[in-house]
Amino acid sequence: MRTRQGLAVAAATAACGVLLFGSAATAEAQDGARRIDARTVPVPAAASEALRASIAAPVPVPVDADAGGLPETDAEWAAFAAAADAAAGQGVDAAAQHLGVTIERGEVEGVAVHRVTPNEVDPAHADHLFLFVHGGGYVFGAGDASVQEALFIASRARIPVLSIDYRMPPAHPFPAAVDDVVAVYRHVLEQRPARSLALGGTSAGGGLTLAAVHRFLALGLDVPGALYAGTPWSDLTKTSDTLFTNEAVDRVLQTYDGLLRAAAHLYAGDHDLKNPLISPVYGDFAGFPPTYLVTGTRDMLLSDTARTHRKLRAAGAIADLNVYEGVSHADYLLVPDSPESMEVYAELNAFLLRHLE
Amino acid sequence: MRTRQGLAVAAATAACGVLLFGSAATAEAQDGARRIDARTVPVPAAASEALRASIAAPVPVPVDADAGGLPETDAEWAAFAAAADAAAGQGVDAAAQHLGVTIERGEVEGVAVHRVTPNEVDPAHADHLFLFVHGGGYVFGAGDASVQEALFIASRARIPVLSIDYRMPPAHPFPAAVDDVVAVYRHVLEQRPARSLALGGTSAGGGLTLAAVHRFLALGLDVPGALYAGTPWSDLTKTSDTLFTNEAVDRVLQTYDGLLRAAAHLYAGDHDLKNPLISPVYGDFAGFPPTYLVTGTRDMLLSDTARTHRKLRAAGAIADLNVYEGVSHADYLLVPDSPESMEVYAELNAFLLRHLE
Repeated sequence: MRTRQGLAVAAATAACGVLLFGSAATAEAQDGARRIDARTVPVPAAASEALRASIAAPVPVPVDADAGGLPETDAEWAAFAAAADAAAGQGVDAAAQHLGVTIERGEVEGVAVHRVTPNEVDPAHADHLFLFVHGGGYVFGAGDASVQEALFIASRARIPVLSIDYRMPPAHPFPAAVDDVVAVYRHVLEQRPARSLALGGTSAGGGLTLAAVHRFLALGLDVPGALYAGTPWSDLTKTSDTLFTNEAVDRVLQTYDGLLRAAAHLYAGDHDLKNPLISPVYGDFAGFPPTYLVTGTRDMLLSDTARTHRKLRAAGAIADLNVYEGVSHADYLLVPDSPESMEVYAELNAFLLRHLE
Repeated sequence: MRTRQGLAVAAATAACGVLLFGSAATAEAQDGARRIDARTVPVPAAASEALRASIAAPVPVPVDADAGGLPETDAEWAAFAAAADAAAGQGVDAAAQHLGVTIERGEVEGVAVHRVTPNEVDPAHADHLFLFVHGGGYVFGAGDASVQEALFIASRARIPVLSIDYRMPPAHPFPAAVDDVVAVYRHVLEQRPARSLALGGTSAGGGLTLAAVHRFLALGLDVPGALYAGTPWSDLTKTSDTLFTNEAVDRVLQTYDGLLRAAAHLYAGDHDLKNPLISPVYGDFAGFPPTYLVTGTRDMLLSDTARTHRKLRAAGAIADLNVYEGVSHADYLLVPDSPESMEVYAELNAFLLRHLE
């Protein structure tokens, strides 16, 4: 009698047919690592025309990085982030006007916020509020730069958005960002039922969203009615499979071994990177609300997103994973007029309408 | 006023921070293709211990491929497939006994079938039937080799399975396989309500499932209550992004430019590979039933699976996409005792219980 394992090997051989050819052809290192030859990856033929055009064109670099070395001192980090954010934050009022939303700057519990309100709120969202958490690797995206995706969400879902301009390193490392999201959330909870609130964002904003919910649960707070985890940076260590498999394939992130690693350590300070409030994938997802997740086949955080999805599902949460063809990290922000981007927010809106009360 | 596109580029820069460094560092060919350097991809640290052990060990090759050249004549193809299937089909009765299921060989409407029945059917599945469509690239998996995954489904979901041993090339190219699935389905429909039936399988089995449903809809037949599309081969052309990005990363399929391409053409014969009954992703998904989809970060058919998911969602269908960390094509069959494999079928069963009537 053959073992189940042996049977399964044969089964997969028959099912796939290709171990017959492939196995000997691939070099395997001693530690089981796979040696992958250099290759050329074409523009993804099944992506939209708009996305393909963007991928085919060299990506503009709006901020001159000059030498390209990473900042080292706190002062260098602060200046670097300020320059990037100043460029990214330019013209947001004009963009808001174009998108049919207004921006009102203020603060809540001492935390800077932007209220982004569509000119015409969808009546179905009249009693809803989207708490937006911006991305930027926990280093970038302060000030007016924080509202970019909030403009798309407010404009496309026609839902009021409160965008949280949380504190960041070098001046304010972990847990300042989590504390700020918690402070704003508690404030809003005094005025509205939790189930009427959505919370979410992209990249570090998605990760911070998940970390904040871990904190809400620890504090005994009611959780929001729905979460948006757009390609969430849910593991700040270099663990996820697609950090390796999609290295350089992802036109946005490109590699962990540079800014990502530096930003992770700048944010975490002396804390363990696997602290679930820093890398939320290591936390307990019991009690999490319905969560909408988005990533792409080229995304270096595809694994972060998929691992989070699995943890949510294992904990019994409603979790909806969406993977877009040819999409690198947060490409739906980079090519906002693409059908992919439209679909991301149309599905986000459908998810909010389904789960918010 | 800056354009939305310019604004978005700046937004993504701020959100991700890395275009500042990355863009100039990556060579881009004239056609927008990305040149990816050789790299070493480690065993995925966040996969289960069982999967990591399997990935770290050289994969056994149960059938000696000898020279490794592809078959050319029909006789060579037939002999090649027969040898592989004989190996894969060995010991299925012993495996069935081990898994607590029985196998009964027969035929329905002239199509060979295996009835795979759990010793203890879940009472919740008493009125359900799973129509199983095996994989094998439309060339492999005939006879006893056809039931491998059916054993796991019957054993783990405790649901009766009718496994369809559809005709294949070289003797019977397209549309024989589709015709056989349709014939069995029509026969079963005379005895049971469509909503009590599930239909599905892995790889070519997933693709054939989707193609058959296109055909059901064209024929005006009621569709099954639920579908299982395990890493479906839904596009037989070399189009999908992950055929390129996961080439050689996928330890099972390894490359399109060999057996996959040959099998696609052997199956399609003179028909266009983009015929929706051959490559179902090109079809119209309106009217599709709830569909459960599974793939992995290393799967060369991740794109086929994700593109199918998006088409289903765009058509308004319930579609549940699941991506497993470090999993190559159909790895859940290759390492059946892994937690990943257990989870795949536990979630399949939950999906069936939710949607079958």
